[in-house]
Amino acid sequence: MKASDSTLRGVLAPVLTPFEADLSPSAPRFVRHCRALVAQGVGLAVFGTNSEGNSLSVAEKRALIDALVEAGLPPSRMMPGTGTCALPDTIELTRHAVRAGCAGVLMLPPFYYKAVSEEGLYRSFAAVIDAVADPRLRVYLYHIPPVAQVGIPLPLIERLLVHYPGVVAGLKDSSGDFAHTASVIEAFGAGGFDVFAGSETFLLQTLRAGGAGCISATANVNGGAIAASAARWQEPAAELRQSALDRVRAAFQKRPMIAAMKAAIASGAGDEGWCRVRPPLTELDAEARRGLDADLDAIGYARPTLAA
Amino acid sequence: MKASDSTLRGVLAPVLTPFEADLSPSAPRFVRHCRALVAQGVGLAVFGTNSEGNSLSVAEKRALIDALVEAGLPPSRMMPGTGTCALPDTIELTRHAVRAGCAGVLMLPPFYYKAVSEEGLYRSFAAVIDAVADPRLRVYLYHIPPVAQVGIPLPLIERLLVHYPGVVAGLKDSSGDFAHTASVIEAFGAGGFDVFAGSETFLLQTLRAGGAGCISATANVNGGAIAASAARWQEPAAELRQSALDRVRAAFQKRPMIAAMKAAIASGAGDEGWCRVRPPLTELDAEARRGLDADLDAIGYARPTLAA
Repeated sequence: MKASDSTLRGVLAPVLTPFEADLSPSAPRFVRHCRALVAQGVGLAVFGTNSEGNSLSVAEKRALIDALVEAGLPPSRMMPGTGTCALPDTIELTRHAVRAGCAGVLMLPPFYYKAVSEEGLYRSFAAVIDAVADPRLRVYLYHIPPVAQVGIPLPLIERLLVHYPGVVAGLKDSSGDFAHTASVIEAFGAGGFDVFAGSETFLLQTLRAGGAGCISATANVNGGAIAASAARWQEPAAELRQSALDRVRAAFQKRPMIAAMKAAIASGAGDEGWCRVRPPLTELDAEARRGLDADLDAIGYARPTLAA
Repeated sequence: MKASDSTLRGVLAPVLTPFEADLSPSAPRFVRHCRALVAQGVGLAVFGTNSEGNSLSVAEKRALIDALVEAGLPPSRMMPGTGTCALPDTIELTRHAVRAGCAGVLMLPPFYYKAVSEEGLYRSFAAVIDAVADPRLRVYLYHIPPVAQVGIPLPLIERLLVHYPGVVAGLKDSSGDFAHTASVIEAFGAGGFDVFAGSETFLLQTLRAGGAGCISATANVNGGAIAASAARWQEPAAELRQSALDRVRAAFQKRPMIAAMKAAIASGAGDEGWCRVRPPLTELDAEARRGLDADLDAIGYARPTLAA
């Protein structure tokens, strides 16, 4: 199996997006968090599902990419989510990401219309790639049927790889079904197509099958440990490490996960502003937060301090 | 039951959006079609689901509203769809529609995140209404669970009506379940809350129950007949008219409906450019179009000429 030489292999976080009191994105908090992630060996899949990425406007996302680059964070470690419902928005964001030097983009299919044809999905991705028309573009397809409802079928991947070899670079599988992840690696991995599990739950399995790593929400709050597990997956202690990762994830997953992760960062960084989410999400209420704290304390979890 | 005095009662079309060869919106075709609809007594629910509204950028939608107003079409008959995934986009579009004089806006809930709380949905609508802060704003809630997946539960309507009386003006029910429509009319209709069926299939039932009319895809291609049925719903011939509407709808509904309606307009107006759709949708292939033509001819259907 031929591995790609991408700078994006390993562990990435769909970076949580902090907000100011007026619910505008908080660039200083965002930069600080990203710096801490990179220092832990975690790549920056900004504007993913757990980033509340689809609750942000194109202008807000462009500005946040610019803030990261201006702060000196490495575009070689960035894979911003750029897929939206509207073709011109996806083109604009993707173009901006490529010009900023981002090593890749994570692209949702257009997700408002349901039960669309494979031909329609093909045309959606092709139209973006053709419009951006930049040899530096690397597209990672984002398969997340539980949320987007619209998925990325295997024949679509095959067709895109035939027409855009080198550009269509991989896939994030958030189906929650490892058999599906394995089938994508089996079908396309040998060609250097990088398949990422959608959570660290499947990290070991994915790496053993020849996948590239994982892009996981909890990398926001347990990034160092997940990155270490990925780096040392062939060691005998790998299973033990995986169990430790699973315990942390379980504590966050018992609650609305985005709000729970933000609460943990708020506690660790001593900054309650981190708790804010944009509607339609809501922050944890006091009782849910106490429950989270109790669960995290019970497993000896250390909250992120955002120290890079 | 107290009826509202809105200029939007009756029949509205989620106006089809025509495109140029480069897939940019075709303002001249759009204006011509809207003029023909208004002449038939059909209101303009532009940027709905059947408008491919969610495939358009905010800038494109703003420009199309401006084109209609500049062409002299009456904002008193406009109810643009303004609900998107991202709060700032929904605010920007809603503000633009109000300032353009649109009598109302049709607002989807944010639809990317699934299984969100009623509190989160409440905050989404409240944040838009508070930010627009214009006494002219009239919000029609858009309940379309088969597509958006995220619906508008009755307790949410109640809460919005308590906090924003006069502003929250009605609802479009595209659940496809008339029992649900009836329950919304029963619960809120007496207060002047205008409930629209999501298709003319339920037009008679909705009007008999005290609803305001329908906002229906097929009003794009059968507007005059649907508007006449709505105006004369108390006449003895109403059932017969309803059956005729149902036959036309059935012919379109047997195919991908947006592409089928565009094909019928292309034929009627002698303008094949009307067939274009944006990805992820696809136009009818030749065989599907022959089938549509045969079905329409069999029921003596006259294609729209777009003559106003």
